Amino acid sequence: MHCNLAIALMHYPVYNKHREIVTTALTNLDLHDIARSSRTFGLERFYIVTPSPEQRSMAHRIKEHWQDGWGAAYNADRKEALGIVRVTPTLADAVSDFQELFSGHVKTVITGARKRPSSVTFDSLRDELRDPENPKLLLLGTGWGLADCCFESADIILEPVSGKGVYNHLPVRSAAAIMLDRLMGGR
Amino acid sequence: MHCNLAIALMHYPVYNKHREIVTTALTNLDLHDIARSSRTFGLERFYIVTPSPEQRSMAHRIKEHWQDGWGAAYNADRKEALGIVRVTPTLADAVSDFQELFSGHVKTVITGARKRPSSVTFDSLRDELRDPENPKLLLLGTGWGLADCCFESADIILEPVSGKGVYNHLPVRSAAAIMLDRLMGGR
Repeated sequence: MHCNLAIALMHYPVYNKHREIVTTALTNLDLHDIARSSRTFGLERFYIVTPSPEQRSMAHRIKEHWQDGWGAAYNADRKEALGIVRVTPTLADAVSDFQELFSGHVKTVITGARKRPSSVTFDSLRDELRDPENPKLLLLGTGWGLADCCFESADIILEPVSGKGVYNHLPVRSAAAIMLDRLMGGR
Repeated sequence: MHCNLAIALMHYPVYNKHREIVTTALTNLDLHDIARSSRTFGLERFYIVTPSPEQRSMAHRIKEHWQDGWGAAYNADRKEALGIVRVTPTLADAVSDFQELFSGHVKTVITGARKRPSSVTFDSLRDELRDPENPKLLLLGTGWGLADCCFESADIILEPVSGKGVYNHLPVRSAAAIMLDRLMGGR
């Protein structure tokens, strides 16, 4: 039985600081941190999604360094974490790869820093994930967040991770960890 | 009323890969990520603890870049997050700085990747934090984790953050985010 939650880290279409839609560059530590957190919470797939062939090639090189290169012998735990990484040009490719593990239809789940209408709660999504044939792909944005069009096309909008007060600027690596804990953590 | 939870990121005494006690080097992204997560959950202090004067100087330079330098104008949110960072040579200095905000006695809370006897649960610590005059300083280790002597001298041992299965190699940045959410997050 496969883990029915996966993460897709989206490098396009996302906003930059000036709210222009851009492709962001890969951040090495996003790959490492989100892979380690995902593996810790039992995920079997973590997709790096970027339309840039050069950036996909860099993601592959990082993965290979820790999987087969010098890094594999140096740190076996890192090897295991990076083993779940897959690199795809589009979200559709990530969905179709993840879909191969399940007969039930993969649904995309999107979240951002601000509250939107008709968003589901973490508890409700956690409940849905109890059905092993109910696979979900959680989309995370880089840069200044996923473009509005992504919210329109996603199957489910998840409530934002909010802290205390008005300041809410979690790094995507930290937001991913909190979401994994809320959705999959032992309580 | 001040936030009664603070974090101390310890760079000594921690283990390296060979279980030798070392001083680790500062990781730039630990400072940024943990400051942003801490600020999001309402914390007012995040201590970088290292006995190395050069490393403390580097921590100050990073903080100043985002507080007063070019970075302050570029990213005001980052400025606000790094405003809670304090740099101290020892844990005792961090405790005594945090103590200035409270009349109640500051207690240190330690946690690591493996389960230890007499550890308290997140829920129980969360309950204790409801008393505003019950300040707690949460110690996080870098490298391969805090040395055993730290567990002997801490006031409270907190249960580890565990995921699913046996793999448990969260980055300290991600573990910090999850702990903050469990202890301070709105539910």
